[in-house]
Order: sequence, then structure tokens, then C-alpha cells
Amino acid sequence: MRNDGTPDGSEVSATDYKAAGVDIDAGNEAVRRIRTLACDTFTPGVLSEIGSFGGLFRPDLSGLSEPVLVSSADGVGTKLKLAFLTGRHNTVGVDLVNHCVNDILVQGARPLFFLDYLATGRLSPEIAADVVAGLATACLENGCALIGGETAEMPGFYADGEYDLAGFIVGLVDRGHVLDGAGIQPGDRVIGLPSSGLHTNGYSLARHIVFDRLHLSAEARPDGLDDPLGDVLLQPHRSYLSLVQPVLSATPGVIKGLAHITGGGLTDNLPRVLPDGVGVEIDRRSWIPPAIFRFLQREGGVSETEAFRTFNMGIGMTIVCAPEHCDELVSRLQASGEPGGVVIGTVVAGERLVTYV
Amino acid sequence: MRNDGTPDGSEVSATDYKAAGVDIDAGNEAVRRIRTLACDTFTPGVLSEIGSFGGLFRPDLSGLSEPVLVSSADGVGTKLKLAFLTGRHNTVGVDLVNHCVNDILVQGARPLFFLDYLATGRLSPEIAADVVAGLATACLENGCALIGGETAEMPGFYADGEYDLAGFIVGLVDRGHVLDGAGIQPGDRVIGLPSSGLHTNGYSLARHIVFDRLHLSAEARPDGLDDPLGDVLLQPHRSYLSLVQPVLSATPGVIKGLAHITGGGLTDNLPRVLPDGVGVEIDRRSWIPPAIFRFLQREGGVSETEAFRTFNMGIGMTIVCAPEHCDELVSRLQASGEPGGVVIGTVVAGERLVTYV
Repeated sequence: MRNDGTPDGSEVSATDYKAAGVDIDAGNEAVRRIRTLACDTFTPGVLSEIGSFGGLFRPDLSGLSEPVLVSSADGVGTKLKLAFLTGRHNTVGVDLVNHCVNDILVQGARPLFFLDYLATGRLSPEIAADVVAGLATACLENGCALIGGETAEMPGFYADGEYDLAGFIVGLVDRGHVLDGAGIQPGDRVIGLPSSGLHTNGYSLARHIVFDRLHLSAEARPDGLDDPLGDVLLQPHRSYLSLVQPVLSATPGVIKGLAHITGGGLTDNLPRVLPDGVGVEIDRRSWIPPAIFRFLQREGGVSETEAFRTFNMGIGMTIVCAPEHCDELVSRLQASGEPGGVVIGTVVAGERLVTYV
Repeated sequence: MRNDGTPDGSEVSATDYKAAGVDIDAGNEAVRRIRTLACDTFTPGVLSEIGSFGGLFRPDLSGLSEPVLVSSADGVGTKLKLAFLTGRHNTVGVDLVNHCVNDILVQGARPLFFLDYLATGRLSPEIAADVVAGLATACLENGCALIGGETAEMPGFYADGEYDLAGFIVGLVDRGHVLDGAGIQPGDRVIGLPSSGLHTNGYSLARHIVFDRLHLSAEARPDGLDDPLGDVLLQPHRSYLSLVQPVLSATPGVIKGLAHITGGGLTDNLPRVLPDGVGVEIDRRSWIPPAIFRFLQREGGVSETEAFRTFNMGIGMTIVCAPEHCDELVSRLQASGEPGGVVIGTVVAGERLVTYV
């Protein structure tokens, strides 16, 4: 825990400290900034000040008959390389929090708290503060307390100016409201919710195409893109909490299943919410993948099959609902003020697979 | 989440996969092994099979009037370099879990579940399985479910054969039993519980002394050490749960405060549990630091002051109790069958500082 005011990972020795490659003053400065950012996200459930050994959270269990904790761990992956390349470090934290929020939302949970793990070779207080500012911004937007974390300075592990970032989220749902897709049946509709870009998946391939194969810079703006590649590729992962949670609360049962479209795309993620005996037919003409996906597919020579298993192709979350609820649900989503949803497919009898028609 | 059977971080594209440096078959093989290891740790609270988006846990809240969740995030730090050096990867997971268990134990919590983050450049299924075997062993020993995690393959981030490992724990305590040290007063006794070695702190300095300065190998056995340096330095972090939890349950209130002696040593960690207006005097003659600490101090030219701020010096956890409870508590700890405790100091009026006498 970095809650003591010094990162555990810094293994402090004033005498031999510099020789061993660890800088305690930089660590303390980073922790001071992080503390302020984290405190701004505190919700009423938070009992501890940053400063004790562990983060204390008293969940509000009122109205829940059987409280279930839903947790998830994630990293940002090689999208971090875009942050290193552009020197913009205040969005990868947003990516991480929103990814985690979506991962527990698909089981019906609302987030309670979040902890991060930030590991570097040598800590830059400025970069650490930028990273945590992104985490704090997204935690605040999702009503999720940034309750603790670890800042590890590990000489010899990371290249200069580089770091790794992971996060852990815990949310709450009543057992009766856990979404598991069990009620999904042939004839149900699949609604796709727009992504904001690549989110946090497909970056090894995207960077390979853009930088290794095409030798483009982050400032390049190829035909068809409205913004420079760096901006488009750094666009933060969207959280679907504020769009979907009100529907779950107001009309329980209408949403039969949710799938977060991450690594593996629609092809691998949609089946995760399907019961045995049903598959999904996706109508490829029901939406047009945003320009960045068409660009990567064309310039990378990526087949349609591979593209839909690597990238989200413009759909970051899917909702399955009964046909009789579909129109009203789509209208409601579109009236939300956020990018709403469109029907992109139908549940069919068959294997637990996605087919594209 | 790697719960889908493929690591999110692997960003799969069969066509361009090898070119982008990611190996999906190795990933799937690792996940299969990890799944088996994790399932063995499942406690009755676990609702989800590994396979859904998030880990589901239904805590047993019976008998608790105000349930409080205590969470902590940690890494292993540069102790990982010892695993890389020796090729032994099945103990760093024990280090991580036990460190996390201790971090929430000091607030009175018992662990519920654990999630890990394992990041590599290129995934070796054998190494990943060894690492998770360590996590699973320690989770099982601590009655803590290994409920999920993320295995990220990030080409270009980590040197060949290297990885980073972080963990996240959630535990439970009734609010009335949260340990915060508030009742600690002058005259109270400080009991020190033996560490098993360096635990997970001081490794940047230790490696600097042993490998950079003395040019020793992991197989070297300097005078005074019973085992080769590699064995001594890889000795896993001890969990104090099975020693301390029975005392907390059987005699609530007797333990006034616990401090986990991590980065910063006794000097920085003991004050974290002290209220304003009291400090601690540690009697340096009350225990003899184990040979590895004396070796590092002597060969590294590390001052006494620095040694006690960098290493745990043989004390991995401290208990503060009233003087009238001290003898019985020490007897009870020593009768446990595990390495028990000795009185190492006294609480005194003064600043929240540790002084050595």
C-alpha cells in the first residue's frame, strides 16, 4: 500500500538509495498529489483517509436481500505506448477505470471502489500525477471511490519514461439482479452501443500497422480521419454506466444480458452472455464501422473475420432484450443525451456463436 | 478479465498475431492451467465459475452489525528479479498474497477474495502456471478465494523471461472491530512477530549489495548463512493470519493495534498505528536480527538507522497490547506451533516516532 505516504515498492534507504535507483523525494511528491486527487473521489461509503494500511469501505446494503460483490482486474495493455509516444498521460487512467466499470456492469453491478497499481522504473511525480488524474476523473464520473493503490518504483523493470498500469474494481449487485443471460432465447434482439474508438483492445495490431508498416507519426491525419492518429488512438474507453444503469434500475428484467466488447471483439465476447442452444446473427449493414477501423482494416490488409475478432468495430457494448421491448429501449437510449444504440442482430437457435450476415 | 479464456491483453488477430508479437495458443494454455489452480481455492462465497466477465462473491454477513470491506493493492517489487535469476517462479505469488493478507489483517479484517495482474512481454504458459500456483497455494492457506485476474501479454514492455505481478485483496470486518490503534497509551507493550526473511522489501538495496557490489551468485553461501543466498532471499513473505486471527476472535480488544513491517521498516510502519501523543521505544537487545540482515548490513556498510528503515530486521508484524495482557498473549502466541512473539518495546509519551534504545 502506498497509503503510508511512501510507496512500498520504493524500498527506501537514504544512504544507498540513489545507487539502488530509487528516488524517495519524487515518490513522496507523487503520493502527495495522488492523495489529493483520490480524496476528491471519496463517496459516503469511504471510511479511511488515505493514510492507513488498507482502504475501508462501508457499502450501503439497504434494500438488498442478498448482496453480491462483483470484482474485476484489468490493465491498459499496449495502448500505454500511445501515451508514451505522445507524452499525454492523463487519459490512460480513464481507459482503465471505464474498462473495469463496464466489466462489472455487464453482471448488473454498480461500482463501489477502485484501486490502482502503477509501476515504473523511476518515478516521475508529474507523470504519476497525470495518470492518477485520469483515474480520479473517471472514478468521479462513475461514482466510484479511488480508495487506494500501489505506486511501485522498480529500477530495471521498465524503460525510461515508461510504466505499466493495472486496476481493480469492486461493485455491488443484489443476487436476484445478477445478469447472466439465462433468459435469452431465439428472436431476441441485440442492440449495439457505440464505442468511442478502439477502447483498450487491438493496440498491438494497430500500432504494428500504423507505426511499423506505414511509418506514420502520431500527428499524421490520413484521408478519412477527422483528427490526427494520436488523438484518435488515445480516445478514452467509454463507460456505459450512465447510459445502462438507469435502464437496469427503472425496468429490471428488460435487459436480458450485456456483453462488453473487449479483446476478441463481437465474435468472442457476445457468446459469453449466451446460454446453450442459441447464437447471434449480426447484420453487418446495420451500422458503419467508424473511419479508424476501416483505415486499419484497409491499410493493414486485415480480413473481415480478423477485424471483428480484434477490434470492437464501433460497438463497445451489446444489450440483448426481447423483441417487444426493443423499440422502446432503443428510443430510451437515444433520448439519453449520450450516443444511444441501434439494433445490430438477432438471437437464433444454434451453437453459441456469432455469425455475420 | 482473463475469465473469457483468452487474456484481454493479448489483442488477438490470427493473421497478424505473430507479427505483432502475441501468442494466443500459449495464452489459452496458460489460462487453462490457471483456471484449474484458481478453482481449487474457491470458498463457499464464490458464485461465479471462472468464465464470466467479473468475479462474483457473496460474503457471509451473519453476525456482523455493520460490515466494512477492507481492500489493498500491492506488487512484489524487485524481489521478482530473484525469481528471474534463479528460475523459481512458484514463490512470488505466495509473497504477494501473504503481503496483501497482512495489510488488511492489521485493520482486523479476514480475507474474502484476491485478484491478480500478471503482465509479460511474451507469455510462457509454464511460468504463468508457476506464478499462479504460488498465488493459489497462499490463497488456499489463507482461506481466500482466487476469484479472477488479468494475464496481459504486452510485447515491448518486459524483457524476455521477465514479468510484473500485482495483486488486490478484499476482506471483511465488523465496524466495531476495526483496529485503529486509538486506545494505545504510554506503558503499553510492543510484541514483535518474527519475519521469515526480507519479506518483500529492501530488495533493490539487497540485490545491489549482493550482486553489484559483492558480485556473488545466487548459489553462494557466505559465512553465517545456513542456505544459499538465492534460497534465503526468495524465502516467501510470512502470513500472520493464522497466528493473529484466533487472538482477535477469542479475545477482542486485547490487541490494540497491529503494524505490518514493510517498506520503511519498524521506523516508518510502527507509527502508522499510533495515536497522537505517543511514540515507541524499541529495545534493540530484545531480539537478534537473523543472519541475512547482519550480512547485508555489514557487507553493504549500511548504518543501523538505515537498516531499520529499509529492512524488517527480523520483525514482520508488531502487536500493541496493555501490559496486563502481555504475558498471556506472548504465551499464547508461542504455544501456537508457529514462530511466536517477543516483547521488543514499550509505548511512551511523546512524538509519533520510533526510537531505538
